Amino acid sequence: MRRFLVVGHGANTDGDFRLDDLPGTGGRMDIIAMSVSSALFLSHELRKEVEVWLVLMGGAPHTLKIIGSEARYLFPDERNIAGMIRTNLLRHREGKRETPGIYVSDMDFREAVESASEDSEIFYLKEGGKDIRSANISGNSTFVLGDNKDLTPEEEEMVEKIGARKIGLGKKSLHTYQAIVVANYELDRREESGTGAP
Amino acid sequence: MRRFLVVGHGANTDGDFRLDDLPGTGGRMDIIAMSVSSALFLSHELRKEVEVWLVLMGGAPHTLKIIGSEARYLFPDERNIAGMIRTNLLRHREGKRETPGIYVSDMDFREAVESASEDSEIFYLKEGGKDIRSANISGNSTFVLGDNKDLTPEEEEMVEKIGARKIGLGKKSLHTYQAIVVANYELDRREESGTGAP
Repeated sequence: MRRFLVVGHGANTDGDFRLDDLPGTGGRMDIIAMSVSSALFLSHELRKEVEVWLVLMGGAPHTLKIIGSEARYLFPDERNIAGMIRTNLLRHREGKRETPGIYVSDMDFREAVESASEDSEIFYLKEGGKDIRSANISGNSTFVLGDNKDLTPEEEEMVEKIGARKIGLGKKSLHTYQAIVVANYELDRREESGTGAP
Repeated sequence: MRRFLVVGHGANTDGDFRLDDLPGTGGRMDIIAMSVSSALFLSHELRKEVEVWLVLMGGAPHTLKIIGSEARYLFPDERNIAGMIRTNLLRHREGKRETPGIYVSDMDFREAVESASEDSEIFYLKEGGKDIRSANISGNSTFVLGDNKDLTPEEEEMVEKIGARKIGLGKKSLHTYQAIVVANYELDRREESGTGAP
């Protein structure tokens, strides 16, 4: 199992944002949506071994989990994914059941990272970390990423406390969604060459 | 110079599409927009050595060129990029000047590929092509990609005729924007390790 935990520092958490203004009223929900697309989608199918946990913090913290093996009716474009997030935040607020494969809770960052560490090793994707090409990554893994802002010092302390290892992806500074594409790609290549999993 | 030439087989060419329906009225303009973001954007800057040529074919063919070293006022999210494309298609139709770093012409696919081959080597990014990690790529390069559809047999014949080499990116079938992220990443890594350019 491969998991991406993306922190939306300013991301809307109650679903009252406009789909035609994801960067503004959504609190950079464009970044969050593209991260979901990058994590879950291949050209003609969903990645069934991937989970995405979105820790949204632009209001009372909410964590929205998307489980690749269970999700249905998803499309890879920014607006559709943002619409799915909005729908599920609203349903959660109204006490209704989420759509298939989506789970919304009130977990904050600390709770989400601690929960992820119970069934996976935690990696913090960060410039200057150990090169992914030489890092030892196998079994269940959770990759933690910030949005357009790095993790705060407090958040960094939390991931360090649970023993997260820092992993880097070359020297260029990538967008969050691009870093997820590259991480998926590097892990796919490892799998294909039989040198690591999954 | 690194160039991505993306074919939008059904992409709107006269600017009369709706920004809240890029997949439908835009003719998968969502794919085109995300391809531009993936090709041109790093986290905090534009890639100045990159050009994107969009060959839009959902009407009378138009080619929209975006020159990384000249472009201004671009944002990395799907909707903003699609808005920029729409604005420039409309300006072209009205005989007005394009926005900085953008050039619209009536080139079709054959003309665009032939023009690109005048100052660069052409690579066709295609599943099953020679692994990018072992391919010889140096100097000025143009990477040709389809949108959600592969190149047609006629288009494939055109790129073969000018001597394009097929390059593959592992065994998974990626979205066009993801393939561009990976190509940029592989070329960046080469550059960083001093084993290739640019």
